[in-house]
Amino acid sequence: MKVGILGGGQLARMIALAGYPLGIRFIFLDPSIGACATTLGSHLRGDYHDETLLADLAKRADVVTYEFENVPAKVAEFLTSNTQVYPSPKALAVAQDRLVEKDFLNELGIPTAPYEAVGNFDSLHAAMEKIGYPAILKTRTQGYDGKGQSILKSVTDLKSAWQKLEGLAAIVEGFVKFSREVSIIAVRSVSGELAFYPLSENVHKGGILRVSESRENDPMQAKAEDYATRLMIALDYVGVLALELFEVDGELIANEFAPRVHNSGHWTIEGAETSQFENHLRAILDLPLGSTAAVGYAAMVNFIGGKPENEEVLKIPNAHLHLYAKAARKGRKIAHATIHTKTLAELEPLKKRLIALANESDDS
Amino acid sequence: MKVGILGGGQLARMIALAGYPLGIRFIFLDPSIGACATTLGSHLRGDYHDETLLADLAKRADVVTYEFENVPAKVAEFLTSNTQVYPSPKALAVAQDRLVEKDFLNELGIPTAPYEAVGNFDSLHAAMEKIGYPAILKTRTQGYDGKGQSILKSVTDLKSAWQKLEGLAAIVEGFVKFSREVSIIAVRSVSGELAFYPLSENVHKGGILRVSESRENDPMQAKAEDYATRLMIALDYVGVLALELFEVDGELIANEFAPRVHNSGHWTIEGAETSQFENHLRAILDLPLGSTAAVGYAAMVNFIGGKPENEEVLKIPNAHLHLYAKAARKGRKIAHATIHTKTLAELEPLKKRLIALANESDDS
Repeated sequence: MKVGILGGGQLARMIALAGYPLGIRFIFLDPSIGACATTLGSHLRGDYHDETLLADLAKRADVVTYEFENVPAKVAEFLTSNTQVYPSPKALAVAQDRLVEKDFLNELGIPTAPYEAVGNFDSLHAAMEKIGYPAILKTRTQGYDGKGQSILKSVTDLKSAWQKLEGLAAIVEGFVKFSREVSIIAVRSVSGELAFYPLSENVHKGGILRVSESRENDPMQAKAEDYATRLMIALDYVGVLALELFEVDGELIANEFAPRVHNSGHWTIEGAETSQFENHLRAILDLPLGSTAAVGYAAMVNFIGGKPENEEVLKIPNAHLHLYAKAARKGRKIAHATIHTKTLAELEPLKKRLIALANESDDS
Repeated sequence: MKVGILGGGQLARMIALAGYPLGIRFIFLDPSIGACATTLGSHLRGDYHDETLLADLAKRADVVTYEFENVPAKVAEFLTSNTQVYPSPKALAVAQDRLVEKDFLNELGIPTAPYEAVGNFDSLHAAMEKIGYPAILKTRTQGYDGKGQSILKSVTDLKSAWQKLEGLAAIVEGFVKFSREVSIIAVRSVSGELAFYPLSENVHKGGILRVSESRENDPMQAKAEDYATRLMIALDYVGVLALELFEVDGELIANEFAPRVHNSGHWTIEGAETSQFENHLRAILDLPLGSTAAVGYAAMVNFIGGKPENEEVLKIPNAHLHLYAKAARKGRKIAHATIHTKTLAELEPLKKRLIALANESDDS
C-alpha cells in the first residue's frame, strides 16, 4: 500500500513513522531539498502546481493526503480526478478561507466569535462599528501561526492594519474573552467510523501553539465531540480533523478547524492508545480505527526557533523527544517533547521543567 | 548523529523507527536486496566480511551496533579498530558459543542447566552418562530459533543426532523441567547507567518464540535483575541485553543471553514508557536512559510463516500491528502484534483472540 502526501514536513514525517509498522510506503511531494519527511520514502521534488509531478503522484499512490490545508483548489481537483484523495477537496476549500469556514460552522449550529467580511477600508470601518473594539483583522486565506493578523484596539489602529493586508481579502473577528483554549482531535474513516481523542488544552503565545495537554473526562468533551461530528458529517470527512475551540462562560466557541493531523494532537503519540498519525492512516485506508483512549497523562511542549540539548530534555524523567531534522530558524517549529506520566501529580512538575527548558532556547 | 547497524532485518527496522524522533540517521550493512530496514536509511549491500564495506561503514557511522550475535570475531575486531562498536566484541564472543557462554554464566554464579562439551561420538556417550536422559544436543555456534538442536530421549537417539551435527562442535544440556520461561530485557549505557524492564513471560513452540507478556512486580524480578547486572558488569556491556531464563522450583536458571534487542522485548513499544529500541540507542549514544516502567499490560504474539489480514488484527480492540515488510516463508517471523490494555482482566480475552488468529495463519 502506498500513500502519497502533499508536503514533506514534520507532520508528514510523523505520519510516515506511524505508517511503517502497518506496512505502508510513502511518496512525498515537496519543493524543498531535504524536506524532513523525505528520508522515509520517495521524494517527488517540485512545485505543488506541477501537473506532471501531481500525475506521477496520483499514479504511484493508492491514496493521497496532505499535511497542510492551503492546497490550491485546482491541485486538489486534479488529484481527485486521478486518484483517491482524503480528506476531500471540499474540506480544504472550507478550511482555507476564514469567511467560508465561519459561515459553514455557523450554519451547522457551531457558534463562533462575531465576524464581518472586509473588502475595503470603508467596510473595515463599518465592520468595526458592529463588532466593537478590541478585534482581530485576519486575511481570509493563507494565515497560520498568527501570520497575517493584526489586533485592533481602537480606531487609530485601522489604517496601519489595513495597509499591512496589501489588498488581500480579510475578516474582522470580535475578541473572545476565553477562560481557556481547547481542541478536539477527531477522526472518521472511509466507512464512516468515528472516534474522538480526549480534549487537548492548549496554550498559545504570539499566535503559536506552545503547550498542549491531554484532558481525559473534561466537562467540555461531549460538546466538542458534538461539534466535530456535525462538521465531519457535513463535509463527508475522511481522516483526522482538529477543531480549535475557546471556552467562554462554560460554553465552547469554535475558532477554526484544520483538515489534517494537528500540533495539538502530538501528545497522542505517547498519551493515547493509538496516535493521531496512525489513526489518520487507518481512516484513509479504511482500516478499523484504533482506540483513542488516554493512556495516563501527557503534556507536549514545542521547541520554537531553537531547542535545548538532547541530553537536557532526556534527563527529565518521562520526557520523550521528537526532533524534526529541520534547521533552526526564528519562529520555526523544529521539535517537540512530551512528558507522559501515570498520574496528574507526577505530570505537573516535569511539565514545568520542560517548559522552562523550552523557554531558554526559544527564538520566536 | 549516524548509527551503523550490521543487519537490516526487523530488529534494525524497529531500532531505526525509534531513532528517527531522536534525530538519528542510519546505515545498514546487509547482503540482501530489499532487507526490510533499508528503506529507513542508507544500504551498504554486501557480505559482512567485505572489508571495503566495513571500512565504509566505520567511516560513515559514529557508532556501530548489530541486530544479531553471530557477527564473526574478525569483523567485530576490524570495526572496533576503526570506530566505536557497542556492545563490545567480547559480548559477541561469549554469546555466540554456547560452551563459552555457559562457562561464563556459571563463573558469575548464574546457574544453568547441567551441560557437557561434545567433540566426538565417544564424548557424546560419556556426556550422556553424566547428564542423563532426556537432554538436548546443540551446536556450540550458529543456532537460533531451535535450529541445529536435537532432543535425546534415549541412547537410541544418539547416532542420528550426532550425524545431524555434521562434525560441528556441540554441547549437551540436561532437560530442565521448568514451570515457565521468562526473560529480562536489561540496558546499560556508555556511562554505566543501568535499567531493567519488567520481566517478560514467554511461550515457545518448536524452538520459536510465540507469545511474550509483560510481568510487572513479578516475584522473580529482583533475581533476574541481579543476574543481568552481573553479566553486564562482567562484559562491560553497553546496549540492550536479553537474558532468557527458566523458572524451576522458585529459582531461575539461565538458558542463554542475546547481546541485542530481543523478540521478547517487542511488547515494550506499547507496554513500557520507553521501548527497548529507543533505550538501546540512548545507551550506545550515552544519552540518559528512558524510564523502563510498565505502562499497563501488554502481550505480544508473533506471526510466523504467514499472517492474518491486517483488518482482522486491527479489528481486535487495543491491537497494534507491526509488519516487517518481509515475504512470507515457512517458519519465518514476518510480523507481530501487541495487545495493550489498562488492566490484566481486559488483556486476557483479547490476547486469546490474537493467538487464535495467529494460529490460523501459522506456517512454522
